[in-house]
Amino acid sequence: MSKIRTEELIKELSLLNTEGMYLNDFLHTWDKTDHEIDAVFTVAEILKDMRKDNISTKVFDSGLGISIFRDNSTRTRFSFSSACNMLGLNVQDLDEGKSQIAHGETVRETANMVSFMADIIGIRDDMYIGKGHEYMKEVAQSVEVGHQEGVLEQRPTLVNLQCDVDHPTQSMADAMHIIEQLGGIQNLAGKKLAMTWAYSPSYGKPLSVPQGIIGLLTRFGMDVTLAHPEGYEVMPDIEKIASVNAENSGGSFTKTNNMAEAFADAYIVYPKSWAPFAAMEKRTDLYGKNDFEGIDKLEKELLAQNAKHKDWECTEELMASTREGKALYMHCLPADITGVSCKEGEVAASVFDRYRVPLYKEASFKPYIIAAMIFMSKFKNPADTLQGLLNRADKRIF
Amino acid sequence: MSKIRTEELIKELSLLNTEGMYLNDFLHTWDKTDHEIDAVFTVAEILKDMRKDNISTKVFDSGLGISIFRDNSTRTRFSFSSACNMLGLNVQDLDEGKSQIAHGETVRETANMVSFMADIIGIRDDMYIGKGHEYMKEVAQSVEVGHQEGVLEQRPTLVNLQCDVDHPTQSMADAMHIIEQLGGIQNLAGKKLAMTWAYSPSYGKPLSVPQGIIGLLTRFGMDVTLAHPEGYEVMPDIEKIASVNAENSGGSFTKTNNMAEAFADAYIVYPKSWAPFAAMEKRTDLYGKNDFEGIDKLEKELLAQNAKHKDWECTEELMASTREGKALYMHCLPADITGVSCKEGEVAASVFDRYRVPLYKEASFKPYIIAAMIFMSKFKNPADTLQGLLNRADKRIF
Amino acid sequence: MSKIRTEELIKELSLLNTEGMYLNDFLHTWDKTDHEIDAVFTVAEILKDMRKDNISTKVFDSGLGISIFRDNSTRTRFSFSSACNMLGLNVQDLDEGKSQIAHGETVRETANMVSFMADIIGIRDDMYIGKGHEYMKEVAQSVEVGHQEGVLEQRPTLVNLQCDVDHPTQSMADAMHIIEQLGGIQNLAGKKLAMTWAYSPSYGKPLSVPQGIIGLLTRFGMDVTLAHPEGYEVMPDIEKIASVNAENSGGSFTKTNNMAEAFADAYIVYPKSWAPFAAMEKRTDLYGKNDFEGIDKLEKELLAQNAKHKDWECTEELMASTREGKALYMHCLPADITGVSCKEGEVAASVFDRYRVPLYKEASFKPYIIAAMIFMSKFKNPADTLQGLLNRADKRIF
Repeated sequence: MSKIRTEELIKELSLLNTEGMYLNDFLHTWDKTDHEIDAVFTVAEILKDMRKDNISTKVFDSGLGISIFRDNSTRTRFSFSSACNMLGLNVQDLDEGKSQIAHGETVRETANMVSFMADIIGIRDDMYIGKGHEYMKEVAQSVEVGHQEGVLEQRPTLVNLQCDVDHPTQSMADAMHIIEQLGGIQNLAGKKLAMTWAYSPSYGKPLSVPQGIIGLLTRFGMDVTLAHPEGYEVMPDIEKIASVNAENSGGSFTKTNNMAEAFADAYIVYPKSWAPFAAMEKRTDLYGKNDFEGIDKLEKELLAQNAKHKDWECTEELMASTREGKALYMHCLPADITGVSCKEGEVAASVFDRYRVPLYKEASFKPYIIAAMIFMSKFKNPADTLQGLLNRADKRIF
Repeated sequence: MSKIRTEELIKELSLLNTEGMYLNDFLHTWDKTDHEIDAVFTVAEILKDMRKDNISTKVFDSGLGISIFRDNSTRTRFSFSSACNMLGLNVQDLDEGKSQIAHGETVRETANMVSFMADIIGIRDDMYIGKGHEYMKEVAQSVEVGHQEGVLEQRPTLVNLQCDVDHPTQSMADAMHIIEQLGGIQNLAGKKLAMTWAYSPSYGKPLSVPQGIIGLLTRFGMDVTLAHPEGYEVMPDIEKIASVNAENSGGSFTKTNNMAEAFADAYIVYPKSWAPFAAMEKRTDLYGKNDFEGIDKLEKELLAQNAKHKDWECTEELMASTREGKALYMHCLPADITGVSCKEGEVAASVFDRYRVPLYKEASFKPYIIAAMIFMSKFKNPADTLQGLLNRADKRIF
Repeated sequence: MSKIRTEELIKELSLLNTEGMYLNDFLHTWDKTDHEIDAVFTVAEILKDMRKDNISTKVFDSGLGISIFRDNSTRTRFSFSSACNMLGLNVQDLDEGKSQIAHGETVRETANMVSFMADIIGIRDDMYIGKGHEYMKEVAQSVEVGHQEGVLEQRPTLVNLQCDVDHPTQSMADAMHIIEQLGGIQNLAGKKLAMTWAYSPSYGKPLSVPQGIIGLLTRFGMDVTLAHPEGYEVMPDIEKIASVNAENSGGSFTKTNNMAEAFADAYIVYPKSWAPFAAMEKRTDLYGKNDFEGIDKLEKELLAQNAKHKDWECTEELMASTREGKALYMHCLPADITGVSCKEGEVAASVFDRYRVPLYKEASFKPYIIAAMIFMSKFKNPADTLQGLLNRADKRIF
């Protein structure tokens, strides 16, 4: 990278209207303006370039990044850690097992108690439909009020590390990968992207990935097709957002129950398992009632339902039907690979293998996307701050 | 804040005799002189002001803060993390589950093994009467000897994050809150503080909070009343300390078995559940003998005993009887709130709600108190060091 | 320490050929040249001196050190943490319980996913013969390829924190201790070191310590004797390495089944329990087959076998037979101490007590050894970098 390119990116950033991001949370991509989305990509790229050029991006001398993971996580945990670390924040995990939350504390109280020196809070809560996003809003509201009341000296901002509705750090990292692969954001318009369901022997995978993808990629003029077997609908609200986005951007948003139709002539394919929305709602209810017998029964039904759609696999045949037979295969990882991680899965081993390097690169954008989201929420004049870092020119490695 | 105010505080600090704190532990407030207690408040305030003014308080370029939590903890864990972070130390948790302590290692060996690069050790061990403080003394002694023998290049100092006897980071944070609410430490004299027992449906809460409060607040000329039902006595040694303190400071220390009497005309009320000292001693013995049947029986007895005192609740009626009906309500949190976190608890929901903001502020002092305790134990000339930081004027956020 | 001494050490370092260490892993000591081994000792000493002189050794402004502990650990965890911290890296633990590795992810994928901002990876995997080292090689290979393919911007290097074959951070720390005790590396030649088995009531202790010791200490011209009861053989490959080393260095490598013979006239004794190699191979197989009945049976056999050798204890009588009756007693800790941590163990309490301080000092070298290994793998011209740090002269404590 060259300093010149970095300075050009900073100049581009300075032209965007991003006021609304300052001291604000990043919960859903569709809450953000096009300028704001663009700013996140741009800052991510700047931070990436600076790191490559061995220039320190440490904007915090001290400060905490709080992580709350209500589900297991490797990738997201490390991405959040990496993002905090490159900005100078230290991660302190709120492990609900270890903490007193389990003993009935209110969200409001805990949110304030852990935030006295918190600059950022990252939350992953994707398990129960209708819960994750609500929880994040509650935390955000709590620290906002805490700040207004003088309890918190600073307003910690939130980054959604995956909720029941959206997975913005994933969809934005995915988008950044597509932008790089297609040679610029302007090249997305008119290209077909197939977000399709795929068979997996497990069940209950969150809907936030397909929803995040159709909610974001429709903004760039792409022809986005959502494909799944009947019964695997995503949230109607998000389909609506996708439709409106497509209309505004001059792209399209189409639905189909035919995988082959989705793959035909696609530039990008994203085949991935998820659970039916209605079933997930039912599961949340059953959990609420501690009806474990009901949950067991539901799981069995869902696995039986899944098993009817084993033909929804990303095979070489399907890949051959894509644009020039060489669509970009995408996945949020880990994938269920036929004959490797399971008997029958989302993708044929040969397809997965061919795309391993791009898949890993796709994942590599996430730490920078998270860092950019943090950055935009904490600095009023992000372009000036980045230029300041460039001028300071501290080395990351001595 | 202004730099002028900060410099005035530094000047005040420089007049205090705090030699005894250097390379020393903070285990009980009553081990410390008035100057030393005053110094902790002053440094806490200076660090708070500097952080508000975006001035870095990082005095350690690297170094570890070891945390040992022998009980669950959210608040204290985050407070310790925050304190270490703002001074530049990285927390490394000694999780006894993960470590080989469980396999019979001696305290002495482990204390040395984890301390090669430790500047500070924070310990919470409040569960068993007669154990927590002893454990801390053993660790302190081990690293002191380790340092003298040349095993440890530096002497890590200890901060008591709650033992079976005292909870100095809580009582000092509470005191700082009172000082701020009453407009200065000189305004505490002659004011009545009621430290009273309150009913909770749980049992076995540590005595270190009431003991910490009566052991510290009696030093400032306050009229401290300790109230509890018969059978809920605290340790006689600590009552003695409170009496001596009161005599020396020109205040008073009174005991009563009548909650209303304690509340009458009080400026400050601190109603909180704790376990009877004698019962906790018995429980410690039973644990020592692995007599789980005995423990079960004791728990049942204690809950039955508690249940006789459900009228020990901080109600609106009681609050109305305090000084002008507006005493400051305090609690270390989380509180058992009637109708909110339990059916019948320590405090009426309307009282708790009215004091939510001050309660949260009360908690907000703890990270600064801990940081000040660390600071005083690691710098020979704390005033000079703080003035140095002020002159250096590094920004916390770029 | 004086700056002059430090500069002399830096000069010595500059004369060593250490090119091969740059961007390379540290898996086994016998993979490294004499110059490289010497460089680690020298850098460890320089870092130690700089820390004593309050000079910052922070070479990373940000960056992650990944730790993977597939076995419980206190010492090694804290040593790795300390080493990372003193260089400026933040440790992020890959806890396989919390992560998705448990769900069948491949090593290759996970290694890349956690390494986007990793500068170093420390792994401890010592439980199963034939597994630990293989796992480390797989991780190393994965990130090497990841870096080549452009997935990882930097090549994280690996430090073996104990595998099934070698324990280089232990043996190097042990060697540094011996060098200091004997007054210089040149004084090791011709001195007898007894690495002997000792009885412990537990079973299945790893072979990596004795193997590490005979694989390393034979390089310095010492007369190394390996003693154990029949049936407690270590890996033949490592014995071979020890023999070749001894031949090259002008020392000797001898085996005996007689503890007294090993102790006779020794300058250094290292009595420690370990499991028979063949039995550990068998156990690994049984685990592979989930044959828990077989494992139980094997454990019982091994404990019975152990019990036949309770006379393999480091007693005062044996110590009296060493060189002038005052050989240096060594142990990697924790030791099984007769009458203290167990009824009958590896060492008599009076022997252990007399050597407590040197034993603790022995352990104190490990953080510096790890830091030196990291340092050598990340800086092309380590002497220049260290001189740069010395000139920068940032203080560790303000």
